[in-house]
Amino acid sequence: MTSLHTDPSGEHRLLLRSMLGEDLVLTDADAMARYCRDWHGDVTSSAVAVLRPRSTEDVAACVEACRELGLAVVPQGGNTGLVLGGIPDMPERQVVLSLERMNRIRKIDADDFSAVVEAGCILWELKEAIAAEGMFFPLALGAQGSCRIGGNISTNAGGINVLRYGMTRELVLGLEVVLPDGTIFDGLSTLRKDNRGIDLKQLFIGAEGTLGVVTAASIKLTPNPDQVATALVGLASLEDAITLYRRARRDCSDLMSAFEFMPPLAFTLAREAIPDLPIPMAADYPCYVLMEVSGSGLVDIDNLMQRFLEGVMEDGIVLDGAIASSQAQARNLWLIREGMNEGQAKRGVHMRSDVSVPLSKVPSFVAEAEKAIHEALPDCICVSYGHVGDGNVHLNVLPSVELPHQQRLERIYQSKTILNQVLDRFHGSLSAEHGIGRLKRADFDARLPETKRRLLNAIKNAIDPDMVMNPGCQLNFTGKS
Amino acid sequence: MTSLHTDPSGEHRLLLRSMLGEDLVLTDADAMARYCRDWHGDVTSSAVAVLRPRSTEDVAACVEACRELGLAVVPQGGNTGLVLGGIPDMPERQVVLSLERMNRIRKIDADDFSAVVEAGCILWELKEAIAAEGMFFPLALGAQGSCRIGGNISTNAGGINVLRYGMTRELVLGLEVVLPDGTIFDGLSTLRKDNRGIDLKQLFIGAEGTLGVVTAASIKLTPNPDQVATALVGLASLEDAITLYRRARRDCSDLMSAFEFMPPLAFTLAREAIPDLPIPMAADYPCYVLMEVSGSGLVDIDNLMQRFLEGVMEDGIVLDGAIASSQAQARNLWLIREGMNEGQAKRGVHMRSDVSVPLSKVPSFVAEAEKAIHEALPDCICVSYGHVGDGNVHLNVLPSVELPHQQRLERIYQSKTILNQVLDRFHGSLSAEHGIGRLKRADFDARLPETKRRLLNAIKNAIDPDMVMNPGCQLNFTGKS
Repeated sequence: MTSLHTDPSGEHRLLLRSMLGEDLVLTDADAMARYCRDWHGDVTSSAVAVLRPRSTEDVAACVEACRELGLAVVPQGGNTGLVLGGIPDMPERQVVLSLERMNRIRKIDADDFSAVVEAGCILWELKEAIAAEGMFFPLALGAQGSCRIGGNISTNAGGINVLRYGMTRELVLGLEVVLPDGTIFDGLSTLRKDNRGIDLKQLFIGAEGTLGVVTAASIKLTPNPDQVATALVGLASLEDAITLYRRARRDCSDLMSAFEFMPPLAFTLAREAIPDLPIPMAADYPCYVLMEVSGSGLVDIDNLMQRFLEGVMEDGIVLDGAIASSQAQARNLWLIREGMNEGQAKRGVHMRSDVSVPLSKVPSFVAEAEKAIHEALPDCICVSYGHVGDGNVHLNVLPSVELPHQQRLERIYQSKTILNQVLDRFHGSLSAEHGIGRLKRADFDARLPETKRRLLNAIKNAIDPDMVMNPGCQLNFTGKS
Repeated sequence: MTSLHTDPSGEHRLLLRSMLGEDLVLTDADAMARYCRDWHGDVTSSAVAVLRPRSTEDVAACVEACRELGLAVVPQGGNTGLVLGGIPDMPERQVVLSLERMNRIRKIDADDFSAVVEAGCILWELKEAIAAEGMFFPLALGAQGSCRIGGNISTNAGGINVLRYGMTRELVLGLEVVLPDGTIFDGLSTLRKDNRGIDLKQLFIGAEGTLGVVTAASIKLTPNPDQVATALVGLASLEDAITLYRRARRDCSDLMSAFEFMPPLAFTLAREAIPDLPIPMAADYPCYVLMEVSGSGLVDIDNLMQRFLEGVMEDGIVLDGAIASSQAQARNLWLIREGMNEGQAKRGVHMRSDVSVPLSKVPSFVAEAEKAIHEALPDCICVSYGHVGDGNVHLNVLPSVELPHQQRLERIYQSKTILNQVLDRFHGSLSAEHGIGRLKRADFDARLPETKRRLLNAIKNAIDPDMVMNPGCQLNFTGKS
């Protein structure tokens, strides 16, 4: 249906309300604002409408209505994404489909180590409900108080526990998805092992809503790790951090659940965000690692951490170390990591990245990238940190606070370009965990091998030939020729 | 190209030889026999030719040649599959593409916890080469002395270590695939974390060669578990085995690497295969579990197993137990498990299954299925065992050895039908780990929801519109309407 009306969005709004009912459709600009603005506040957009379905059937009706009206659907979870995958960029053609009302936990089955949850469940609330049953859902990331599990699945979220439990993909047993034609793919099995051919659910994990709308998932639970040991250690170099990681995997029998490296500047930044934060170590070492070992039952995790650190200090790999002796102390160590992020935000707009290289290349990559950026942009500061066990580095660049806004934006652009050049030499990934969304589409596109592009277009055309789902996200998919 | 020759296969053979060179093409019936016969010897077929490429480029040329001649490609690894996925069933139209000559290990990188290997590497040889570098590749299954990694990936193989390390899918970092149009998809990255949108490699894992030919893979390695504790325990029921499993996951902090349940008949069957096999326990208990806990470094695995078993014996969950005190004793415990399989084979043709149900349903599923089969077929014996932690049961049915062959085949058919009926009531999977292949195609097809069928056909048409790859495997895919 093509509108000849002078205000096509107005007409579309009326039609959506009449097709779906007032309750599901937001069209007021103020009410829509928070759905059309990204987490960092970098981008403000708008949309024809925001649809807020309450059930899988509602979602199917929403997709069907949009398809009928020639509108496109931008699915959105907690709107905490960092690459604009859920933010509309064609306000007159796109509708935001928020899953926030689909937030029921359908089932937690501790006996089966599984749960079935709706896409709109907030990750933290989910984790709490699961913990109340004595179980554990390992996904853990900064946005966990606001992000929703459907978004985590659609972006294949990473986070701090990936080295032990894998990305979100590895935590998913089954999916329920509303397809672009409005039909419902019901794959909510809780079977641990099901090898009936091509595994369709894999397509939707990490697709950022370009192939359908994830409405519910069955997920894997594990026993709650009732013992957690947390330590902050100082090292002579990032090379030593990698050595420490390798040794920790072996010595701690893969019971390590987090391994984050940070520069000494982390302490300064954390204090800028949380002035009275206790920091149990001087900023005297070139590199710091925040590590966590966890387990349950008969394994003595505190003892394991203690003996591990004694060994690596004796061998000179670790120069200084502090083990948290209470949950409060452990929390404070994590606040250094989190405060470092907040501290960067407080210094204004800056370049954020989320890249990965092979583990053994992390030190040389960071050194080369920081050197190239320092040389070209001496008025900028590099802050490199990340989930080093996964080869995942967040190399951020803070332009001098003295610079006017426009020049800061230029520095961001310049430093991103330099970083990508170095990254290409290391055959790294420009998105280790955040996805592509709209923010990284051009950089992704520019590096996409032809064979991969052809496959992606073929898959998109096979599942969403009318390009209803999230156009502009990941790739400007091309229709059938 | 359509042949009007009276012997089209003869003409195709000549053309393949001239297009690909003598070295790559086998056409002699005797030489082809072993590629056209399945592992169990149930099916003997033939093919236009067997192609044996030595490189990825060879594979591309083979696929291209087949496409040009209107022939279909049946990829084959070690030919140890259990569902006829690699056995041709249209001898005049199909060519077997054996990957056995592509058996180079391209790289083992202990520092990166990764390796890059060609599809034709024999799993056991691969594991040994990796172990020589102090690392471990966790995939472990009965056929590991003959199966090849490309086949493991194409079937998403399971095995005994799935509960700790996941299916083959979770061990794959990247793939190189020759697509049905003869182009090469190069996705051999060893990045641990790479979230650049839709993850195309997932499509080829478990596709059993219906979407392309896996020619190489980058795989995840872990530290070698230098401590392994193995125990055989006797229990009052399968319910107690599930209770034991739940407790073991918690008490042993997920360091369990195998948890296999067996009936008392296992001992008899194992002795029939290996007459002098030492068995450290009387066949007095209704259920046995063979469990393994493993780890590396500072965790004391023997002590962990010891204390765990003391606890569960005190609590009456385990009635009797024997911990292996040497590698030789551990090996003997595993020989009970393996001998049980051989013993079944020695009793002649029988019904084998590979099903899964949710963990908590395993005892009631086994009880119901065995009861139904006993009632309908009193001259048959059920042997149920499996990877119970994954809800994966191999419920096999041995017809009386007194019965003539034809009646045994009838019993196999009847018992399979009964099993599937019970399985459907439990919403189980008719393939937990073996795949669909040709053997389970009809049963899979009969249960395939329409939405899933539509998606599978759409994907197949998107990637292999000319139906070059492995027709007859998984599904009789339908072309574009």
